Amino acid sequence: MLAVEYVGNEEFRVAERTARLPGPTEVQIAVAYVGICGTDLHVKHGHMDRRVPIPAPIGHEMSGTIALLGDAVTGLRVGDPVTVMPLKWCGHCAACAAGNQHVCQNLVFVGVDSAGAMQQLWTVDQSIVVPLPSGVRLDQGALVEPVAVAVHDVRRARVEAGDSVLVVGGGPIGLLIASVAGAKGAEVVISEPNRFRRETADRLGIRTIDPANDDVLEMVESWTLGAGVDVAFEVSGAVAGLSSATHALRVRGRLVVVAIYSEPVPFDLFRVFWRELELFGARVYERTDFDEAARLIANQTIPAGQLISAVEPLNRTAEAFAALESGGDVVKVLIEVGR
Amino acid sequence: MLAVEYVGNEEFRVAERTARLPGPTEVQIAVAYVGICGTDLHVKHGHMDRRVPIPAPIGHEMSGTIALLGDAVTGLRVGDPVTVMPLKWCGHCAACAAGNQHVCQNLVFVGVDSAGAMQQLWTVDQSIVVPLPSGVRLDQGALVEPVAVAVHDVRRARVEAGDSVLVVGGGPIGLLIASVAGAKGAEVVISEPNRFRRETADRLGIRTIDPANDDVLEMVESWTLGAGVDVAFEVSGAVAGLSSATHALRVRGRLVVVAIYSEPVPFDLFRVFWRELELFGARVYERTDFDEAARLIANQTIPAGQLISAVEPLNRTAEAFAALESGGDVVKVLIEVGR
Repeated sequence: MLAVEYVGNEEFRVAERTARLPGPTEVQIAVAYVGICGTDLHVKHGHMDRRVPIPAPIGHEMSGTIALLGDAVTGLRVGDPVTVMPLKWCGHCAACAAGNQHVCQNLVFVGVDSAGAMQQLWTVDQSIVVPLPSGVRLDQGALVEPVAVAVHDVRRARVEAGDSVLVVGGGPIGLLIASVAGAKGAEVVISEPNRFRRETADRLGIRTIDPANDDVLEMVESWTLGAGVDVAFEVSGAVAGLSSATHALRVRGRLVVVAIYSEPVPFDLFRVFWRELELFGARVYERTDFDEAARLIANQTIPAGQLISAVEPLNRTAEAFAALESGGDVVKVLIEVGR
Repeated sequence: MLAVEYVGNEEFRVAERTARLPGPTEVQIAVAYVGICGTDLHVKHGHMDRRVPIPAPIGHEMSGTIALLGDAVTGLRVGDPVTVMPLKWCGHCAACAAGNQHVCQNLVFVGVDSAGAMQQLWTVDQSIVVPLPSGVRLDQGALVEPVAVAVHDVRRARVEAGDSVLVVGGGPIGLLIASVAGAKGAEVVISEPNRFRRETADRLGIRTIDPANDDVLEMVESWTLGAGVDVAFEVSGAVAGLSSATHALRVRGRLVVVAIYSEPVPFDLFRVFWRELELFGARVYERTDFDEAARLIANQTIPAGQLISAVEPLNRTAEAFAALESGGDVVKVLIEVGR
């Protein structure tokens, strides 16, 4: 079978590899599609070389069908359409003991810390295989993982029907957070300077504001009659966006910083004090988020198809990464591994 | 009657003033004691000159007895020992409408934004007068306000029996937070470099660590068997203390930044993400906190007497401020206004 391996120095190569047969509790998946995520871009640029077992196939947003089952596997059948929740926890650390396995202190993120989905036959433990509900096309099934991120973020912020929600940053995750929050009955506005992303939001029925032309805080003042929004998500990764999100919130408003700030950044703790704001860290997802994400795609609450900008064959992986990084008019790019 | 007025330029003067008679819903209090707070030090140094109606008596930590009642006042009697909850809210902003009057968007902090308690006869609205429970000495009654701050902080952090709690900074508020958390059944450690403050904590039965000599995070690791603490309070006002508090927390641990950072400071949002930490802003107190604070002093759960380092007469107000700022061996300094 063919695999796309990250080999370091920003390079990928397509290589013929022998598929691993499943052990007793494992499942071999015929991979259909793999989505490229911001984390994969970090891998390409070497930021995670200490974690990735180079050379290795990466990729953790995927879909496929079951090709082979280990002897002890139950509840799954050959041919079942599936995705994978790419987390393996230790089961014995304090976080696991407290029921927070998804932030296990020894968490293995599959596709980064161990081999990922960019291979035609991928063998994983049955515990991380998630059946796709009927009605989910395989290309859209590759979006269950990023939708689960959004579901988790929205749940951490305790978004409820009627809440006013500001999403700062309209990239793939920002769009998904806005969609999931909207599906809960929240009123949502995305702040995003990129025209293509705003147009994508428009197509999804989400209100937008261009922070380069309009004052976000003035808009929030008038929208919420001076109160501030109930919930803000900072997804831009820019300190100015973090400031907007912090200052848009009402008294006791809830903030989730979704963008990853690898170094400490200036943060307005005075505003947190003055308005008794609440900040909730959110990382990956729990199984309940993954299952909800699959349902939201199955019942078309999340129009996953509208977020797929391009599908590239395996031997054009480098071009797919380049398209994502071009700043061009793309949201989600998939690699069609099975072709 | 005599009043101590802040006149600007770091100066106070004792002046003869005419006591204001109470209006129909007002109460005139014969002030007994006024505590000096960190906020009062900021006033002295001119940081709040835009808010203080100079010249004016300041002071918001106080006790006294009722001297006169307005015609429409009910439920209070002349001679009752009382304190004052120094907040006046507008009643019609979004925060008030949501039930968060204590962080009213137009809040008046009495003793800063309007005349305070450093006058022998102080006339205030009955709505902010809080009767002292029997068993509270008047000198200790002046500590209800700072204890209420601690009660509010502890409630915002949802401290429960059995929680491990790190308090970074052992000044008056840090000591009170530790005492209130301990009274809830939490295991508490204060990190404080000042020897006198650590000795004060020892006398109150609170464990301490000297961060100048011992590694706080190593101590937390061994104390919590690698998990991290459930709750951390940052009361030091130092960025290093903020970092300790953030890094001491377990997965989904709760942080309250009590120290006031007037400018944005570097904050480790990566740690918030990685461990799904939760940050809760906390400002002043609600009436329920004030009432609980009075009870905690009345039943001697909070040994308020042990926290009073000195009591100075009205004409030594300047010396009392100087003693607090000397970095010497003082926790709480009171002005005996009635003498």
